Amino acid sequence: MSSFQSQQIDAPTRRQFLKTLSRGAGGAALAASAAPLVGRAAPPAPHAETIGIALVGLGNYATGQLAPALQETTKCELTGIVTGTPSKAETWKQKYEIPDENVYNYETFDRIVDNDEIDVIYVVLPNSMHAEYTIRAAEAGKHVICEKPMATSVQECKDMIDACDTAGVKLSIGYRLHFEPHHQRVMTLGQEEVFGPVTVMQNGFGFRISDSATDEPHIEWRLDKEMAGGGALMDVGIYAIQGARYVTGEEPVAVTAQEYKTRPEVFSEVDETLFFQLEFPSGTVVDGSTTYNGNYNRLYATARDGWFEISPSYGYGGQKGRTHEGPMEIETVNQQARQMDAFAECIRQDRPSRVSGEEGLRDLQVIEAIYDSVAADGARVPVG
Amino acid sequence: MSSFQSQQIDAPTRRQFLKTLSRGAGGAALAASAAPLVGRAAPPAPHAETIGIALVGLGNYATGQLAPALQETTKCELTGIVTGTPSKAETWKQKYEIPDENVYNYETFDRIVDNDEIDVIYVVLPNSMHAEYTIRAAEAGKHVICEKPMATSVQECKDMIDACDTAGVKLSIGYRLHFEPHHQRVMTLGQEEVFGPVTVMQNGFGFRISDSATDEPHIEWRLDKEMAGGGALMDVGIYAIQGARYVTGEEPVAVTAQEYKTRPEVFSEVDETLFFQLEFPSGTVVDGSTTYNGNYNRLYATARDGWFEISPSYGYGGQKGRTHEGPMEIETVNQQARQMDAFAECIRQDRPSRVSGEEGLRDLQVIEAIYDSVAADGARVPVG
Repeated sequence: MSSFQSQQIDAPTRRQFLKTLSRGAGGAALAASAAPLVGRAAPPAPHAETIGIALVGLGNYATGQLAPALQETTKCELTGIVTGTPSKAETWKQKYEIPDENVYNYETFDRIVDNDEIDVIYVVLPNSMHAEYTIRAAEAGKHVICEKPMATSVQECKDMIDACDTAGVKLSIGYRLHFEPHHQRVMTLGQEEVFGPVTVMQNGFGFRISDSATDEPHIEWRLDKEMAGGGALMDVGIYAIQGARYVTGEEPVAVTAQEYKTRPEVFSEVDETLFFQLEFPSGTVVDGSTTYNGNYNRLYATARDGWFEISPSYGYGGQKGRTHEGPMEIETVNQQARQMDAFAECIRQDRPSRVSGEEGLRDLQVIEAIYDSVAADGARVPVG
Repeated sequence: MSSFQSQQIDAPTRRQFLKTLSRGAGGAALAASAAPLVGRAAPPAPHAETIGIALVGLGNYATGQLAPALQETTKCELTGIVTGTPSKAETWKQKYEIPDENVYNYETFDRIVDNDEIDVIYVVLPNSMHAEYTIRAAEAGKHVICEKPMATSVQECKDMIDACDTAGVKLSIGYRLHFEPHHQRVMTLGQEEVFGPVTVMQNGFGFRISDSATDEPHIEWRLDKEMAGGGALMDVGIYAIQGARYVTGEEPVAVTAQEYKTRPEVFSEVDETLFFQLEFPSGTVVDGSTTYNGNYNRLYATARDGWFEISPSYGYGGQKGRTHEGPMEIETVNQQARQMDAFAECIRQDRPSRVSGEEGLRDLQVIEAIYDSVAADGARVPVG
């Protein structure tokens, strides 16, 4: 947390105000409010504090989740894109009314420093590019949201945090489930020991990559160690680690792990299936599992006096929660819209994101310990 | 299987026939059929082939499950009891109309050899006594059902199998779930690869022993290594192992395992929580978990083209099954009644039990490998 206390908020705040004057056709909300601002005398309307977000990397997640979510945010809006594919740029410009001057490619990316309509860079690139683009975004004076996993190593995470600190910008990781009400409920149930201390958790997240899907663009890079940094663990196992950490409210002290591979020709570079076991300081133990070879999706916690679960747990929607007392009666929400609005609020109030770079770094510490344990034939490896 | 082919079925069959003549007030079904048998000329009526079962050890399971189940069986009946507690003997005699001559204690146990109304000894004692009473029952010429875990070591299992072979009696292990329709369904789904080969399973069974329950009779012996042979793994983890074996239809080739203890003062002798990982020859891997420190109860399998689960899974009833296609519409049954009737049928038809001694032995091989892995800090241990 302390790394954020030295942040300079002047620059972004000034830019934000100027944005309300200079912004073009970027957002419907802004267009509607253009008139009162012309005279500069009126105080900024609440929506004048809307934060402009540029998405970097227009793959499946940006296209299917983030851009639609940005139509539902109230505190931020899609003002820019960065893509290496001209045809994508054209489609997005039209669909989301993004002006030419807010469209970048990877050669022109750094010019974003001069664009006052973009306050936040949202890095949605393959894992291996997270560090580079987060650091370049910070150097351009932009706040950053970086997708999970934060990076492919602990060292990269540290470099990213340092770069954002130095630049005085905020860094947030795309941990959408911190803003999902079922997950917020289990954080409370676990951390406040509503049913007594949590004793054992079983967290698993996996999906099957079929043999015929390996050359699809959103799958191909996941099988490339250089691009992805790792396999199922990096991609979806991280949710099981997250769940363990935010239910207990603690950091694991040690891990053990085992790796299995049934299709070595497909998973020649990255992990297909990993089981991992996490030990927490107050005694909770977590039976964790992740795979690219089957479908499961569950967070389960048993405690001294009861139990609770979310199943399905980690998707973009459809969460179902239960406790030993019965179903959780909780509505699902647009997780990404809440996540981005929450970050906008952090920027406005100059406070750190709840899903800060430090949060992302801690997961990478666990992930590295898990890979170390696998390499050491399942030996117990301390975390951090 | 071959160990059963040499069985002598003459003696039990003869006894069985004689039983229909000699049996007293033991069973209502028999009483109703006494008349036609007096003349010995009529062929035995179907119910004349009812098998007489004596329960050895009148603890919670015998009292709450087996005796009531024996009121629902159609092919066997409760004809005797063995107990060291005279007050229990009195209660049972009255409740189940058991004649004095069919009531034994542990001193008089071996006289059961002379009792033609008892065809089967059902051993429901603490684990450490399974071997001794199974062997003594075999030596008394009685078929045996022995509760799970079959014994506390592989060697004991082998001795039990040998004793039953030598005596020419059948041996069955109390694996009630082999007769439960949800579990029979998942055996089919897994073994016939209805959704393709099973890739990953998550099997867990545990319950919490509260600090205040440790001196209750049905808990106390479970905490005693001498009596129980082991902790949660022996007692309930065995169901997770069973589930893995009968869904895959294979034997695990290797295991890894980890042990955790949060209440060493309670679990000074036996395991409180164990995670274990099983590898099967065709590639299925199983994430297994068992505990005395929380409640969970689930069998989950993901396969190439779908998934299936039973949750709750391992109890005496209440099974709920689902697949990716929707709920399993299956009625629950009296598992123990089916289990015992199936054994009666094995005796009548002179074929081995589907839950034979060999089946029990295989689980003990896995259990010993799991404990060996724990002792070797999670090293991979071959099974068998």
